[in-house]
Amino acid sequence: MFDVEEIRAQFPILQRKINGNPLVYLDNGASAQKPQVVLDTIQRAYGQDYANVHRGLHTLSTISTDNFEAVRGKMARFLGAPSEDHIVFTTGTTEAINLISYAWAAPRMQPGDEIVLSIMEHHANIVPWHFLRERQGVKLIWVDTDADGNLDPQAVLDAITDRTKLIAITHVSNVLGTVVDVKSICTGARDRGVPVMVDGSQAAVHMAVDVSDIGCDFYAVTGHKLYGPSGSGAIFIHPDRMAEMRPFMGGGDMIRDVHRDSITWNDAPMKFEAGTPGIVQTIGMGAAVDWMMDVGMDAIAAHEAGLRDYALDRLTGLNWLNVQGNPRDRAAIFSFTLDGPAHAHDISTVLDKKGIAVRAGQHCAQPLMEHMGLTATCRASFGVYNTLAEVDALVNALELCHDLFA
Amino acid sequence: MFDVEEIRAQFPILQRKINGNPLVYLDNGASAQKPQVVLDTIQRAYGQDYANVHRGLHTLSTISTDNFEAVRGKMARFLGAPSEDHIVFTTGTTEAINLISYAWAAPRMQPGDEIVLSIMEHHANIVPWHFLRERQGVKLIWVDTDADGNLDPQAVLDAITDRTKLIAITHVSNVLGTVVDVKSICTGARDRGVPVMVDGSQAAVHMAVDVSDIGCDFYAVTGHKLYGPSGSGAIFIHPDRMAEMRPFMGGGDMIRDVHRDSITWNDAPMKFEAGTPGIVQTIGMGAAVDWMMDVGMDAIAAHEAGLRDYALDRLTGLNWLNVQGNPRDRAAIFSFTLDGPAHAHDISTVLDKKGIAVRAGQHCAQPLMEHMGLTATCRASFGVYNTLAEVDALVNALELCHDLFA
Repeated sequence: MFDVEEIRAQFPILQRKINGNPLVYLDNGASAQKPQVVLDTIQRAYGQDYANVHRGLHTLSTISTDNFEAVRGKMARFLGAPSEDHIVFTTGTTEAINLISYAWAAPRMQPGDEIVLSIMEHHANIVPWHFLRERQGVKLIWVDTDADGNLDPQAVLDAITDRTKLIAITHVSNVLGTVVDVKSICTGARDRGVPVMVDGSQAAVHMAVDVSDIGCDFYAVTGHKLYGPSGSGAIFIHPDRMAEMRPFMGGGDMIRDVHRDSITWNDAPMKFEAGTPGIVQTIGMGAAVDWMMDVGMDAIAAHEAGLRDYALDRLTGLNWLNVQGNPRDRAAIFSFTLDGPAHAHDISTVLDKKGIAVRAGQHCAQPLMEHMGLTATCRASFGVYNTLAEVDALVNALELCHDLFA
Repeated sequence: MFDVEEIRAQFPILQRKINGNPLVYLDNGASAQKPQVVLDTIQRAYGQDYANVHRGLHTLSTISTDNFEAVRGKMARFLGAPSEDHIVFTTGTTEAINLISYAWAAPRMQPGDEIVLSIMEHHANIVPWHFLRERQGVKLIWVDTDADGNLDPQAVLDAITDRTKLIAITHVSNVLGTVVDVKSICTGARDRGVPVMVDGSQAAVHMAVDVSDIGCDFYAVTGHKLYGPSGSGAIFIHPDRMAEMRPFMGGGDMIRDVHRDSITWNDAPMKFEAGTPGIVQTIGMGAAVDWMMDVGMDAIAAHEAGLRDYALDRLTGLNWLNVQGNPRDRAAIFSFTLDGPAHAHDISTVLDKKGIAVRAGQHCAQPLMEHMGLTATCRASFGVYNTLAEVDALVNALELCHDLFA
């Protein structure tokens, strides 16, 4: 039985006061807070079990390696991947998408080849493809959202031409909360022989993800948004695509033999993990996804659906506040502006005085902001530990903003 | 006043027993253990002060950003860099060298251009250059060590031709402990207009480093070897070289503006740090280098010189044990083999029964091993918390190995 107070008690930082008020943390889209079990896992990993992995035969190295490698299976279960061999560890979605860009896309893209993107991609799923435009003459093909912030899967599929080599698409918009029907996109793309890279940074936090059901070629997640440590992440890579990839970074672990004039690679997935990995943050990420699965992804999704519906109801009831987008299916993420002169930064600052953490700015999604004619918004993004009372606190503080700036 | 027992009391893991014996951790070359102040810094960063950096205006984001960015100055002081703007954060030396390979070297290397390496480089300082050989026709020029494991700076300089574009060299060998006279190499190379990349992974642990005095273009260090968290690191980049670098990974933070058809970069050093960085591990690395500077780099070096001399004396006293190399200047790192049939892995396993952690294998330095005609060695690498009594424990356990396998 999901009990939000029991959940909250597991997050030490939620005891903290900000400017004399209880912390109301609504910046989960940027990064989530960590439960005690993740903190304890980190302490134990450093304080009792620490050594480098893969290279040692002594006890601590064996323990550390076992704890580290066990996360591959945890992450495979979390994402519905058929095998832990399909999981490559990363430092987050940014590195994951750069890995795909450098190791899979760059060697196979010719001038004039096309990559299809939605207009609501995060910069992490834009800039690596811009590199290929600049360096190799690849064309970026943008698919717009409709006026409500929906992305029509058919519009994405209609953008495919015989030059399309990849579709790179987010599962959930970090600005609008739009849930994209990536399964329909993957099904249609597969029929056309076009691989699909899904940015799961925001989605995997809020809902059960099953990459086998989605049918994607690549699915990237970020550990620090999944209540895990900073600098952790993973990507599911379909074995057919993995077989096509050359190495990205070079160093220890990813090689088999190194000579003066030649070199051979280790087997995947280690072929794509160079050097000492993020040992303890990866072990911590394992504790985090175990914790999420223990709470239950359906329970998390149901709790956040309740927050979303209540927040939407209360926010749309303010006739001087503009919730951006009205997608049919959305996660508990809301961007908004206020009528009048108040800049998003000003609003964020006032909210902070009340202990409420929201993000203000362009949210690393400048093309979407331009498409919507916005320079900046505030964003309230909810997580598993947020409450209906915190929605009320947000609304009360926004009413104060309205009074201040009206 | 340096007191090794006082130092040891700060490392919780040193209380641990391995197979019923006190842990004798001599695998510091692979990764070092963490003092309590680093563990406490991590706990505080997650448990009280956590949020994403650079993007938020709310209190927690400001605190987290301040704590994170303060590490740039700490690392600049630690390395003797003139400005914190010369410090780029990485996940370790492997990423750092790949950054230089992709962002600086790859765009400026033509087929037939040459990179000079020593034969005792770690794979992290070999494989990225092999990529340029495979992909761009760059030639790798190897400089051998002498029979004692010394690297003659003049031999490195003599390898320079008019096609030489880079010298990539370690400061301390992770296998032999050889301290390389990188200052002489940098001085001579500068006269010839050839940039020098120094792999400082092993050196910065054991001695004071001053990149301004060395005169190098690039100097990479690994946080987890500096008593800091896994997944942390930094590289000093001379501003002239930094100005020549294109971005490596694309994503948030490293850009200024992103449009459908164009993109502009952020200023260095953030231009080279894409996406959410390793927030807490970088903050932890700052605590670690502060801790090292508080202990005193000269005190650390003096303590380890004592360990080195005592270990060398005791190990060379065993006429059935072969310490590899006899360099004039060495850090407290020893590779050795035993006469007779005992493989390094067997020795490592016996030592582990006695609680002693050493590394066995090729130490990610296969070209050196081939040069020396070795397939595997054991390596004992010392750190700030090791004691003369632990040297005795090592020797006693090796005598047991000798009896077992003779």
